[in-house]
Amino acid sequence: MDRITRLKIVNGVSGIKSANLIGTRAGDQTTNLAVFNSVVHIGSNPPLLGFIARPQTKEVGHTLQNIKETGEYTINHIHPEFTKQAHYTSAKFERNTSEFERCGLTEEYLGECKAPFVKESRLKMAMRFMEAIPIELNGTTLVIGEIVNLILPDGAMADGDLDLEKVNGVGISGLNSYYELKKIAYYPYAEVTEVPEF
Amino acid sequence: MDRITRLKIVNGVSGIKSANLIGTRAGDQTTNLAVFNSVVHIGSNPPLLGFIARPQTKEVGHTLQNIKETGEYTINHIHPEFTKQAHYTSAKFERNTSEFERCGLTEEYLGECKAPFVKESRLKMAMRFMEAIPIELNGTTLVIGEIVNLILPDGAMADGDLDLEKVNGVGISGLNSYYELKKIAYYPYAEVTEVPEF
Repeated sequence: MDRITRLKIVNGVSGIKSANLIGTRAGDQTTNLAVFNSVVHIGSNPPLLGFIARPQTKEVGHTLQNIKETGEYTINHIHPEFTKQAHYTSAKFERNTSEFERCGLTEEYLGECKAPFVKESRLKMAMRFMEAIPIELNGTTLVIGEIVNLILPDGAMADGDLDLEKVNGVGISGLNSYYELKKIAYYPYAEVTEVPEF
Repeated sequence: MDRITRLKIVNGVSGIKSANLIGTRAGDQTTNLAVFNSVVHIGSNPPLLGFIARPQTKEVGHTLQNIKETGEYTINHIHPEFTKQAHYTSAKFERNTSEFERCGLTEEYLGECKAPFVKESRLKMAMRFMEAIPIELNGTTLVIGEIVNLILPDGAMADGDLDLEKVNGVGISGLNSYYELKKIAYYPYAEVTEVPEF
């Protein structure tokens, strides 16, 4: 199998991936925005989210570099009406180009967070950097942060879970394909004594 | 905010999560199957996937325990017709109860892998355990494995990406809600010189 086909298949087989934009600010104040499909829940108490940062090079890695410099970042959900803008933040722009401006998304500042939020996003979080754990196997990094502020739209919860159909969430397969979400089932917390007969 | 509401919200805000069943075998040959919503792409060369294992207790953690004992496991996509069976594998059964039997899913053996696959799943992988990285912040573990065998259905690829609508993939929000996927957009690899004007 050639390198590109292998890369595309392996990027898809984990299943659907979350679709988020991570906003940061460099020490020199330039803002940065990048699409990430690897944001993952680490724990609820304290409220921790992680994401996988690729091996750092001169061209790639402004997000992690900024997070380490400033200690803060934002995570912003992507919605169907701006998947195209979000996708093109993945181009390797120079560090002094702001993806907000180049890709047609709007900076927003909320609370005490100095990192930029995405105004177009309806579900977003201010994050405090906690730890960068190196993954020696391939030079990537698991970046973990704590949620310090959460902006949720009205009516976002259903059955006690965040309803990703109602808030118009999207998912990503591989690196290039975007999906809408349609809720099909809800099941309660699975107690051993309440498991149905199958 | 009470503990349960906080837990449910924090479990949802990362966005849509992958829906997989992880199959393992204990040293004493008992099979184990558990739903995981944290499988994440780590890298393509070598082909690595990770998942987050919760803090290990007597009741919780059979999957990681088995993986460490035997060095192998399977990752199996969940499809809409068996989300209910998949969900109830999360009940805290005794270690000597096989979730396959109790939850109505079928063990399957493919190639040299001694861990059980899920017959009902159309996209599945044999995994070789590579590394368990402790996350000191909350006692969870990032478990990384290499894909050693991949079973893909015919016609699974579209635009060079795995088409998760065609293969009837599902996603999870929070811990209890399941979603179907509808492809809405595909964009090419984002070259700086080919970024549209926004």
